[in-house]
Amino acid sequence: MNQGSARKVPQTEQPEKSNILSLPLEETQADREPHSYERWLVAKLMRMAGSPPIQFRLWNGEVIDPGDQEPRFTLHLKDPKALYTLVSNPNLAFGDLYSAGRLDVDGDLPELMEALYRSVHQARQKWPRWLEALWRNHSPRATGLSEARENIHHHYDLGNAFYQLWLDQAEMQYTCAYYETPDLTLEQAQLAKLEHVCRKLRLKPGMTVVEAGCGWGGLARYMARHYGVKVHAYNISREQLAYAREQARAQELDHLVEYVEDDYRNIQGQYDAFVSVGMLEHVGKENYQALSELIRRSLKPDGLALLHSIGRNRPMLMNAWIEKRIFPGAYPPSIGEFMTICEHGDFSVLDVENLRLHYAQTLSHWMDRFNASADEVTAMYDEHFTRAWRMYLAGSIAAFRAGSLQLFQVVFSHGDNNRLPQSRQDLYACPAAPESP
Amino acid sequence: MNQGSARKVPQTEQPEKSNILSLPLEETQADREPHSYERWLVAKLMRMAGSPPIQFRLWNGEVIDPGDQEPRFTLHLKDPKALYTLVSNPNLAFGDLYSAGRLDVDGDLPELMEALYRSVHQARQKWPRWLEALWRNHSPRATGLSEARENIHHHYDLGNAFYQLWLDQAEMQYTCAYYETPDLTLEQAQLAKLEHVCRKLRLKPGMTVVEAGCGWGGLARYMARHYGVKVHAYNISREQLAYAREQARAQELDHLVEYVEDDYRNIQGQYDAFVSVGMLEHVGKENYQALSELIRRSLKPDGLALLHSIGRNRPMLMNAWIEKRIFPGAYPPSIGEFMTICEHGDFSVLDVENLRLHYAQTLSHWMDRFNASADEVTAMYDEHFTRAWRMYLAGSIAAFRAGSLQLFQVVFSHGDNNRLPQSRQDLYACPAAPESP
Repeated sequence: MNQGSARKVPQTEQPEKSNILSLPLEETQADREPHSYERWLVAKLMRMAGSPPIQFRLWNGEVIDPGDQEPRFTLHLKDPKALYTLVSNPNLAFGDLYSAGRLDVDGDLPELMEALYRSVHQARQKWPRWLEALWRNHSPRATGLSEARENIHHHYDLGNAFYQLWLDQAEMQYTCAYYETPDLTLEQAQLAKLEHVCRKLRLKPGMTVVEAGCGWGGLARYMARHYGVKVHAYNISREQLAYAREQARAQELDHLVEYVEDDYRNIQGQYDAFVSVGMLEHVGKENYQALSELIRRSLKPDGLALLHSIGRNRPMLMNAWIEKRIFPGAYPPSIGEFMTICEHGDFSVLDVENLRLHYAQTLSHWMDRFNASADEVTAMYDEHFTRAWRMYLAGSIAAFRAGSLQLFQVVFSHGDNNRLPQSRQDLYACPAAPESP
Repeated sequence: MNQGSARKVPQTEQPEKSNILSLPLEETQADREPHSYERWLVAKLMRMAGSPPIQFRLWNGEVIDPGDQEPRFTLHLKDPKALYTLVSNPNLAFGDLYSAGRLDVDGDLPELMEALYRSVHQARQKWPRWLEALWRNHSPRATGLSEARENIHHHYDLGNAFYQLWLDQAEMQYTCAYYETPDLTLEQAQLAKLEHVCRKLRLKPGMTVVEAGCGWGGLARYMARHYGVKVHAYNISREQLAYAREQARAQELDHLVEYVEDDYRNIQGQYDAFVSVGMLEHVGKENYQALSELIRRSLKPDGLALLHSIGRNRPMLMNAWIEKRIFPGAYPPSIGEFMTICEHGDFSVLDVENLRLHYAQTLSHWMDRFNASADEVTAMYDEHFTRAWRMYLAGSIAAFRAGSLQLFQVVFSHGDNNRLPQSRQDLYACPAAPESP
């Protein structure tokens, strides 16, 4: 397998990496007594966050309780500056401080994050306007042709070896799996997702498919292998494509699958199916109209299209830390914004399925494997990177559990296409997941 | 059964009823030669409509061909004034002239209407702005509390005896049926729809359900009978409620089903399920926010809601004739407008299914029965009424076939509800339709 070598995170926008443990004590002030207004600030911060069941342990060991409830988690603030950083921009600072080891957590990290999300979601409805303005997330960076390359490189070119440590061993799927029953393994659920997508597209041998944003190419190979279709799969991540092509050759599928290193906006030709799994999050709202027009010209009159994407119940910016440190340019659309893509293209929405809790389960499986490989990850990068990714995975689990993120699979056709499936019964004729090996 | 007596259409807004056949010949000018500019006007009208495969037969028998294609249909214009009326406002005049017998059709009426819709849909993209303005549909009338009563009375209180002539004999369903297989009878497909809705709501014995806009009460009784749930069903059509209550008593379901004569906006209490089948079309965009808030307060934390409604692929006003003569106040939302209801209430959209072609088939079944009972309908009302309803049914079949109308079933929950179905597999465990009796 053509595995890219592990490398450092590209230096697009890096947080302050100062690890409290490596600073001289006098610089961190981590030995001094908290001031009374610092205790007040902690109490205020917790009220603004809706009083979640969290206690704070300050740098000197002093504990501040959450008031009228039993704490379920402890946040450990290791120096006074960490408190000020947290208060001034919690969305960004929480992840940065955790990554730097200046904030730590006792208790289950995803559960703490979920409690925090639920509590903040309620509380923010009562925030004064100045606080809303101070703490708001900022617009994602641009997603033009060249920026998109930079954004995608930042995340997806971290090295295949890294992703192989914790993604499924079946098809390297870095998107929501489909747990048609809750006890599936990650591998089964990822294969079930691929099968579910193929069924929704009603693929038949000899059909042609175009895929926008193909990751490591697993869906394209699955379609070719199990449905005998021809696939053109586009991606701008060089690392992923190298792996995808190698796999297709090894599995003798390269006569059916062509991986194209190009932006989705340059897709040519007309196809029986248009599919995109986990790319829309990176497209950016400003490009929805162009995407819609692209699908309109790429889909045959009788074709079906499927978009699979993280989304929202209502419009909201991506969490600042995720957008800045993990997924530059990311924006998950609300269901209404998602539908504007379909409306603009005069498409007919046939089927929407929300797999929100499936993504929470997928991420839990990833996180278990990630934690089991933490030492290897740290050896590849450093402790800061490992902690940042742990926070990202935990925060994502929490966001899907708390309902602040959704996962939409949307199937649509041209508005005047009458060759439609009679019902969705055929999707459920037999299990989508393979039996356990 | 408590059948309301047949009555005349309420006099809210009535078209000119002059039937050409009953006017003296000199007044209609139906014996004179067409002027050359009248021939030009017909040709121009057909070009503006995208040159559908239709020929015109004028009042004197003269035929004007559609140009370069074989005509599949003939439109018979019976007097010169009909031509001018048609040209000045075709959306409204086509139905009015047909109803009055001043315009007639050779060929299958739904097929003609479908050809016309498809052709106009293409052609209007090239219309000059003045024509778009001249021919545009107008905003639907108001849907406040008192207007809603008037609007609903206009259509639904035509008399149960009338609707019994052509709706299914099982549960008097005046909404889209569910043809899980294409060969179902109307009765089977309507029962399958009721079953499909119950399954989507995951009803269990002892649950409570509130229904907004219950028609003749069939869904409420079905839920009580087959799922042992308690239903509060709201409606403001007195005729329908009389029938619904009588049926519940006769079937000994009145301990489970309570029919409430009140506006949906006055729903009280909290329920395990909120359901509304075929009411949203009458709600009006200006009331979506209030509807959203109503569902928010009426749905228990773990509850599921289902809205079933005619919709659009993109925002567009209801056809002027349908809104004026058949469904006052009607507005089918685009999928995006539909989603604003969910976004406003912070709901999580779980499942959207589009049953567009199922509605075309439902309407075809209705139209066959309607045509078979045409003499009875004319005896109840008059020839004008019968022709108007034939046009309405044919036009609706055409609109669903041509893709200018959709049928969306949307299931959603509160945004923080995690007690969600694992998948949609359970909806398809066995056929929803009963076996043929």
